[in-house]
Amino acid sequence: MTQILSSIAIKKKITKELKLECRFLLENGIEPYLKVILVGSNPASLVYTASKKKFCEKIGAKCDIIALNEQIDQNTFLDIIAKINLDTNVHGCIIQLPLPKHLSHLDIGKLVNEDKDVDGFHPNNLYALFSNHEMEKHFTSCTPKGIVTLLVENNIEIANKRVAIIGRSMIVGKPLACLLTNLNATVTLCHSKTLNLREITKEVDIIISAVGIAHLIDETFISHKKNQIVVDVGMNTDTQGQLCGDVNFERVKDHVLAITPVPGGVGPMTIISLAQNLLQASKKKVSL
Amino acid sequence: MTQILSSIAIKKKITKELKLECRFLLENGIEPYLKVILVGSNPASLVYTASKKKFCEKIGAKCDIIALNEQIDQNTFLDIIAKINLDTNVHGCIIQLPLPKHLSHLDIGKLVNEDKDVDGFHPNNLYALFSNHEMEKHFTSCTPKGIVTLLVENNIEIANKRVAIIGRSMIVGKPLACLLTNLNATVTLCHSKTLNLREITKEVDIIISAVGIAHLIDETFISHKKNQIVVDVGMNTDTQGQLCGDVNFERVKDHVLAITPVPGGVGPMTIISLAQNLLQASKKKVSL
Repeated sequence: MTQILSSIAIKKKITKELKLECRFLLENGIEPYLKVILVGSNPASLVYTASKKKFCEKIGAKCDIIALNEQIDQNTFLDIIAKINLDTNVHGCIIQLPLPKHLSHLDIGKLVNEDKDVDGFHPNNLYALFSNHEMEKHFTSCTPKGIVTLLVENNIEIANKRVAIIGRSMIVGKPLACLLTNLNATVTLCHSKTLNLREITKEVDIIISAVGIAHLIDETFISHKKNQIVVDVGMNTDTQGQLCGDVNFERVKDHVLAITPVPGGVGPMTIISLAQNLLQASKKKVSL
Repeated sequence: MTQILSSIAIKKKITKELKLECRFLLENGIEPYLKVILVGSNPASLVYTASKKKFCEKIGAKCDIIALNEQIDQNTFLDIIAKINLDTNVHGCIIQLPLPKHLSHLDIGKLVNEDKDVDGFHPNNLYALFSNHEMEKHFTSCTPKGIVTLLVENNIEIANKRVAIIGRSMIVGKPLACLLTNLNATVTLCHSKTLNLREITKEVDIIISAVGIAHLIDETFISHKKNQIVVDVGMNTDTQGQLCGDVNFERVKDHVLAITPVPGGVGPMTIISLAQNLLQASKKKVSL
């Protein structure tokens, strides 16, 4: 029987832990506080920011969505972030992507101070990940961290495993490659210019797809030895307008050892990592 | 016939270009100036720093080796670097590794200002490489950059190729994996915890070894289809005390399309990259 790597039970378990941690912080006079910068009204961004706020509040943390007009000028935008960077009551700040075109040239990773960068995009946070040095003092990108949590909670070994990551984005593919390498996996980072992708995916123990192409991965990418694990990071819309992953779940599931569903797989893990990072940032403020 | 990827002719060609560039800078009132910090008297470090100075002077740049006592205390050491960071006449500064034990905990990448970090170790320089953003305004690690130059000068395609890098160091393996990924290669980063390394090396187009184990790579790592390229980054000493690479050249050479020798392969390319980075740093000082 193929193992379905659902995140529902894991989310429940970690939420409980986060609530306890949050209560402990509150008892020590710290109210974990996240600011989410949202520019414009991209429908997906509205949904994502709302779920982040909801989850923060569920565990007992404070979260404000700073909703800014699509046309906001650059200086006003930068001023708002600068003020948040200075606000000692705020522990974490994230900028919801994508930004409107006139702001998209900004080097987003450098805007939020590294000690509030709970998205893990700041150069110093990425440097810690890259160099595998003082990781505990820095923030790890949320989706890669969530994928590792999902695997670990399902008792899936990472060390000594071969992993193919499809997609070299700064949000998932690249930081995930670093994180898994640090955890002693042997990673092949594949992308749009990779030839013979199927040859590579058939060779590895774990396939992780993060390309954003609905149903790209079907059974032709799988070794059929029923010994592979497939992790689907995709959040796409199919031709019927339904949420779907990069993996054609129905065509893949019987050929693998384990597979994440969409929804209910990697998706919720990103928010969990964000909340974990927020509490980590809050703890820095006291010597707990 | 196996192509021997010697760097001798390339070094000669690039040295000529660097001399011209250096002369142009001198005519514009800029004397490219490198400071090399050397702590203690590690024999290999003495050789390396001397060759760096020699090559800088050959192209017309200035280079001082700041030779410091092995026992230097941390504050004095940091003060010296801080002064160099402030010195507007100095364009580049590198710290020769390894450092003595009492200094080795320092986060070396953060000591030299990013605009003088011609070794490409600063978090902001690594971030540019990692994100493939504004690479021309930042410095790329010397050995990875030199390997790419060696391949490009030999008309070896990188895009669409599969590459296995053996060794995940911060000086070679990791930045090289980023650089080659940015250049559209598909990279597998292997290391001491990789199982079945030979299976991986047999699958790829280009094998790059940077582990520092004399003669680790023999014909059993090669596909024997005579279509692979082997790049040897190793600088080891064999049982007879002779300089040798990670690759057993004699046992590999007849089975591959092309191979770098040791010495005269990757080694000299590192110094070339360093000089290129120094001139890039010097050019920043004027609007040339």
